[in-house]
Amino acid sequence: HTPRALLILAEGAEEMEAVISADVMRRGGVDVTIAGLDGATTILCSRNVQLQPDMSLEEASKKGLYDAVVLPGGNGGAKRLAESAKVGEILAAHAKEDRTVAAICAGPTALLAHGICTGKKVTSHPSVKEKMQSDYTYLEDRVVVDGKLVTSRGPGTTFEFALEIVNMLCGKETVEKISPPMLLKK
Amino acid sequence: HTPRALLILAEGAEEMEAVISADVMRRGGVDVTIAGLDGATTILCSRNVQLQPDMSLEEASKKGLYDAVVLPGGNGGAKRLAESAKVGEILAAHAKEDRTVAAICAGPTALLAHGICTGKKVTSHPSVKEKMQSDYTYLEDRVVVDGKLVTSRGPGTTFEFALEIVNMLCGKETVEKISPPMLLKK
Ligand SMILES: [Cu+]
Repeated sequence: HTPRALLILAEGAEEMEAVISADVMRRGGVDVTIAGLDGATTILCSRNVQLQPDMSLEEASKKGLYDAVVLPGGNGGAKRLAESAKVGEILAAHAKEDRTVAAICAGPTALLAHGICTGKKVTSHPSVKEKMQSDYTYLEDRVVVDGKLVTSRGPGTTFEFALEIVNMLCGKETVEKISPPMLLKK
Repeated sequence: HTPRALLILAEGAEEMEAVISADVMRRGGVDVTIAGLDGATTILCSRNVQLQPDMSLEEASKKGLYDAVVLPGGNGGAKRLAESAKVGEILAAHAKEDRTVAAICAGPTALLAHGICTGKKVTSHPSVKEKMQSDYTYLEDRVVVDGKLVTSRGPGTTFEFALEIVNMLCGKETVEKISPPMLLKK
């Protein structure tokens, strides 16, 4: 089947992290739903880029479990994801069924807030390292994989983060096929 | 003064190239206007990400010359930029006054279509190399600078492309200040 990913977008999300993740996953053939935390209207991101979600999170959450749930960073966006009970429910349901849970930059602080995969190996933006260290085994690699948990550090690591999700959902051959046309830094 | 940049967004633009360019320039303190080629409504990009421009190109073009004009790639988007007489006028006016003209991926084909800076050193996405070679001195570096002309190769080179524009508009100190928090690949 075509793997499905849910990318949850909240006001203040880091737009590069959201867009690179969605775009690279779609290049890999993943069916990506960009869901707006507070509805289906345009979302103002951290550097004032306005993104139109595909649908509201409410609607997206009715479409069964996804193969992956992806959280972009951006301090404002991550704070909203951390405060949302709905996001907590969705993350817990996916983690319980061993689906891919992925978060980048400040995004992992939403995992912390909802007690998702505590104890596992993670990374995050260096600015939230101390916060994360309390409940996780903290590493400083650009992308950290522990089971189905994928975490990463910031805008500049998003290509590697998204390709790791594609690797998990679609396999190495897909990663090797979509990488050269993107002219990634070696 | 605060440097001003005009990023022209058309249907089919590569969303990573558009968003990374805008975001990185804004991190550098550039006043970036994301202008919609065909109006101010939401634009469907190459991998189905929907971006809401700040205003129409019509409106943005009334605000005087910018310090930089930036063209993202994406085949569909670049084709629309190449076919627009308005884009041709804007590029010519900025090139004539020695403002920064920047294009990435398939974006440089719009420069070719409008006869902008012909003969100068450029690069582009490898898939449009042959087209570009006819009228320019073609290089394969990740970012090529010739005077105020900045060109680059694809999604994976966009951080370097945007930082070169920031370097030109704001200086090296700004580049050094905004780079570490983005966790760029060395
Ligand atoms: Cu492209």
